[in-house]
Amino acid sequence: MSADIVYRPIGILHTPFRDLEGMPIQPSGEASAPGTAQIFPAFADGLKDLEGFSHIILLYHLHQVQRADLRVVPFLDSETRGVFATRAPTRPNPIGLSVVKLNGIQENLLTVEGLDILDGTPLLDIKPYIPSFDERSEHRIGWLEGVDGNASTTISDDRFKAP
Amino acid sequence: MSADIVYRPIGILHTPFRDLEGMPIQPSGEASAPGTAQIFPAFADGLKDLEGFSHIILLYHLHQVQRADLRVVPFLDSETRGVFATRAPTRPNPIGLSVVKLNGIQENLLTVEGLDILDGTPLLDIKPYIPSFDERSEHRIGWLEGVDGNASTTISDDRFKAP
Repeated sequence: MSADIVYRPIGILHTPFRDLEGMPIQPSGEASAPGTAQIFPAFADGLKDLEGFSHIILLYHLHQVQRADLRVVPFLDSETRGVFATRAPTRPNPIGLSVVKLNGIQENLLTVEGLDILDGTPLLDIKPYIPSFDERSEHRIGWLEGVDGNASTTISDDRFKAP
Repeated sequence: MSADIVYRPIGILHTPFRDLEGMPIQPSGEASAPGTAQIFPAFADGLKDLEGFSHIILLYHLHQVQRADLRVVPFLDSETRGVFATRAPTRPNPIGLSVVKLNGIQENLLTVEGLDILDGTPLLDIKPYIPSFDERSEHRIGWLEGVDGNASTTISDDRFKAP
């Protein structure tokens, strides 16, 4: 039931962000932020056909997160929320998810837009973004109702830094 | 660079599907398939505020996948594709992602709709589905252009079973 699950990075994400503080909090916050995903050569064969997709889903390991909180005060809020009702990084399993624009692929290097994460973040998986699988037309967004628009202008502070 | 990354399940997913063969291939394929996510009591505190969201993103470990393929023939296609350009389970890090409808929460039990995975799958993370973060309006979907609609009627065969 609670056996360890072991993954290994398939690559490394490169971004302009060197500190957990002062980053855009979501890709939509800095849609033009440049980034690259460097795929390790052993996995480059799996990139075939990917450039047909304008957007991809990146799953990555939030390697600088030092603790897990079950309750957090998210950047867009002043109230304490359950961590699973937020996108805060201090999660039991610190897996990050971003939908990014894929601008090009050169051998094992993907050029993307909108990566809101630390330089050097280990990449776990790439999936094609497929609206018919990944989008839902009818939705409620709980505590984010009315504040999600602020994601585009909100910058991180040090609240999720260790300890 | 390639250090092990270790996660532990936060819960277990329960679905009607006991075999990798004969399942809907995507949640959209069986929008009404019932499922439950049983969160381990130690993590239940993180569920606060989640029921305000109509849809959630589940990340889970595809525990029955026994191998990784860099090239696959996806269910919707007859050509060999790079695995990262598909949603096939035989990935280097077999992390599954589903956007599901959240019908209710009772203590540590989430009732959801549209889980296309095996009964007993270990759950890694829950994130709220937030259209302004997770949806992109302009998109190309590569090899899936014209065939993604078939996902709603396609049933899995044994191609991703071991060995």
